[in-house]
Amino acid sequence: MKLPIRETPIAVPGFLFAGVACGIKASGKSDLALIVSDVPAVAAGVVTRNRVKAAPVRIVMERLAHARAQAVVVNSGNANACTGAAGMKAARDACSQVAAGLGIAADTVLPCSTGKIGVPLPAAAMRRGVAAALAALDDGGFWQAAHAMMTTDAFPKAGMRRVRVGGRTVTIAAMAKGAGMIAPDMATLLVVVMTDAAVAAPALRAFVRAAVATSFNAITVDGDCSTNDTLLMLANGVAENARFTPASADGRRFRGALADLLGALADMVVADGEGATKRMRITVVGARTALEARRAARRIGESQLVKTALYGSDPNWGRIACAAGHAGVALDADRLSVAIAGVPVLRRGLPAAPAAVTRAARGMRGDAVDVRVDLATGGRGRATILASDLTPAYVKFNSDYST
Amino acid sequence: MKLPIRETPIAVPGFLFAGVACGIKASGKSDLALIVSDVPAVAAGVVTRNRVKAAPVRIVMERLAHARAQAVVVNSGNANACTGAAGMKAARDACSQVAAGLGIAADTVLPCSTGKIGVPLPAAAMRRGVAAALAALDDGGFWQAAHAMMTTDAFPKAGMRRVRVGGRTVTIAAMAKGAGMIAPDMATLLVVVMTDAAVAAPALRAFVRAAVATSFNAITVDGDCSTNDTLLMLANGVAENARFTPASADGRRFRGALADLLGALADMVVADGEGATKRMRITVVGARTALEARRAARRIGESQLVKTALYGSDPNWGRIACAAGHAGVALDADRLSVAIAGVPVLRRGLPAAPAAVTRAARGMRGDAVDVRVDLATGGRGRATILASDLTPAYVKFNSDYST
Repeated sequence: MKLPIRETPIAVPGFLFAGVACGIKASGKSDLALIVSDVPAVAAGVVTRNRVKAAPVRIVMERLAHARAQAVVVNSGNANACTGAAGMKAARDACSQVAAGLGIAADTVLPCSTGKIGVPLPAAAMRRGVAAALAALDDGGFWQAAHAMMTTDAFPKAGMRRVRVGGRTVTIAAMAKGAGMIAPDMATLLVVVMTDAAVAAPALRAFVRAAVATSFNAITVDGDCSTNDTLLMLANGVAENARFTPASADGRRFRGALADLLGALADMVVADGEGATKRMRITVVGARTALEARRAARRIGESQLVKTALYGSDPNWGRIACAAGHAGVALDADRLSVAIAGVPVLRRGLPAAPAAVTRAARGMRGDAVDVRVDLATGGRGRATILASDLTPAYVKFNSDYST
Repeated sequence: MKLPIRETPIAVPGFLFAGVACGIKASGKSDLALIVSDVPAVAAGVVTRNRVKAAPVRIVMERLAHARAQAVVVNSGNANACTGAAGMKAARDACSQVAAGLGIAADTVLPCSTGKIGVPLPAAAMRRGVAAALAALDDGGFWQAAHAMMTTDAFPKAGMRRVRVGGRTVTIAAMAKGAGMIAPDMATLLVVVMTDAAVAAPALRAFVRAAVATSFNAITVDGDCSTNDTLLMLANGVAENARFTPASADGRRFRGALADLLGALADMVVADGEGATKRMRITVVGARTALEARRAARRIGESQLVKTALYGSDPNWGRIACAAGHAGVALDADRLSVAIAGVPVLRRGLPAAPAAVTRAARGMRGDAVDVRVDLATGGRGRATILASDLTPAYVKFNSDYST
């Protein structure tokens, strides 16, 4: 399922990119990305809800308060988490160096880190990396930056959409990294979204929240939510479009394009789940509320038994019903229904005939499987999440590698 | 970690046992157990909190209300879950046949099932099995019954304690089955406890609740809680001890012996976790409350990343801190401490020197690893849970086998 991604050129008016190798990764692969807007941009973002927050996450939270940013500096190979006061200083120093190099205010530079927890961020390597990235900044450097964010990723996740708002065609592009420690409770890993649209700060926040809810907050690889998850969006306004509100037709178009883009990236993250060979789209309907539907979908998507059954192409609806029953949400066990790959295997509490199970098993052979569960509460709550399978390769990978 | 268990003779005065093969399991292994008290016994129990409850669980809930029971009939190889009205009838029929054979009331027979979900309980096989078990009942049949409860277990879990209460030495014996679908939210799988002590119903309930809290509710193999989990305890009083209250010295001794016995069985269940090669005892201290400590311990014990690190003997405290941070409980990230195998690897928010990590890695090589986490809230909440590792064998097993 390691989809080869064609790295077709991506550029966003008014943005420069760089990705360099500075020696944080022992492998010598690129490990420092820099994304810079020509002019100060409106910024919004979301960060992990984990109570253990990496140093860069704490700085991002502070700096997003004023909704302005001009640069994002990302290092991979080191999470700068659980690194105490020295970690905070290391992240601030990297931002200050970027700011000095660009002649902008340090608090408009947002830091992100990803990699191993609890290792001091190597100061000399970071200094070298920032200097090299400043020198390499280029409007054609998008993919270099996307590569430099990667850790255990098999491929960079990125995409672009164009949409007409406020009388102009604007570009929205995004790059993401992440393949493990992915859960829908925030679950972005690192994502940077750039647009040349002019968007007011409250509108940008609303767009980000809505798009994250249906994309990165609706996937799960292994149920863990990292110390570093961060999604940032910068809107630099160089398209000079007229202002538009979220509720207008333009706003709906913009929101749709952003949701579509982030949804595609979230899919890529699941497709690149550590050791994953296939994924399932779990839709729960008939819940009392959307929140309960989401909780049930997530419990199913995180169940080790469901994930191993997916790996084995086993239409084991008993494990799905069991996970739903254990989700702490209302359901009517006597009228519960489950369909796998479009085949009803449990109908209003009663198992389907063996032939149906055989058909469902056939339907599970592909690398994308639809699972639909009706909790039969009489309510109209529904939710969808995307989950990867659990494989021997996942276990091997995560017992060999220190994140 | 498949500890060979020496099947030393176990008998409980006034109890008869049988374990027979009746053809529910395609393998031909024994699959029906019957446990009978010579006289009506006081009964207490706990069942799964899963909202999808198997037919036998629903019947047990009804029948435990009157706190009297004389027999337990257990089948393995079929969970009789998600089987609708036919499943309820099949479970009641088995109980009625036992009752008729013994000349006792049907509602004093408690049914348990374990195995595959959603398959009709084969009526003819059950009838044959109950008849054969009735004929085979014997006070020396303890291990046959224990074997007949097994599904994916590598070995039967059982034990016995003797304790002096009310002027008599009484016996408490228990048998359990379970190796997968184990989580601390109920997490008994099937456990039947027999004692010849005379215990009043409210006291028996209190003893069971207390012993389950520190044993079967404090283990996790894969975070799932089955549709069938049931623990039953029958006290037939043939020891003719004087009555004793839970708060008395005798009560404390009885509770201690029961907790010790169930704790030992719970350990065996984790040791036999599907595909498990080792286990960790996770103690969380410094939580605001015991409940929060338990939630954090459970999150750590259920984290796929922590479980794979355990498998790989990797003292990856970053994953432990991350799981704790994601548990939804209060903690002070700047003062968090983690010790692995007795070696502090994160001290008040700061990583230990590499030599300590090397020592911790050495300490992880054994098959039982202690993990201690101090959430540093200033509170005194603490909890301990026992968890198994996540291995390629677990995945292989659960992707091949339909539970």
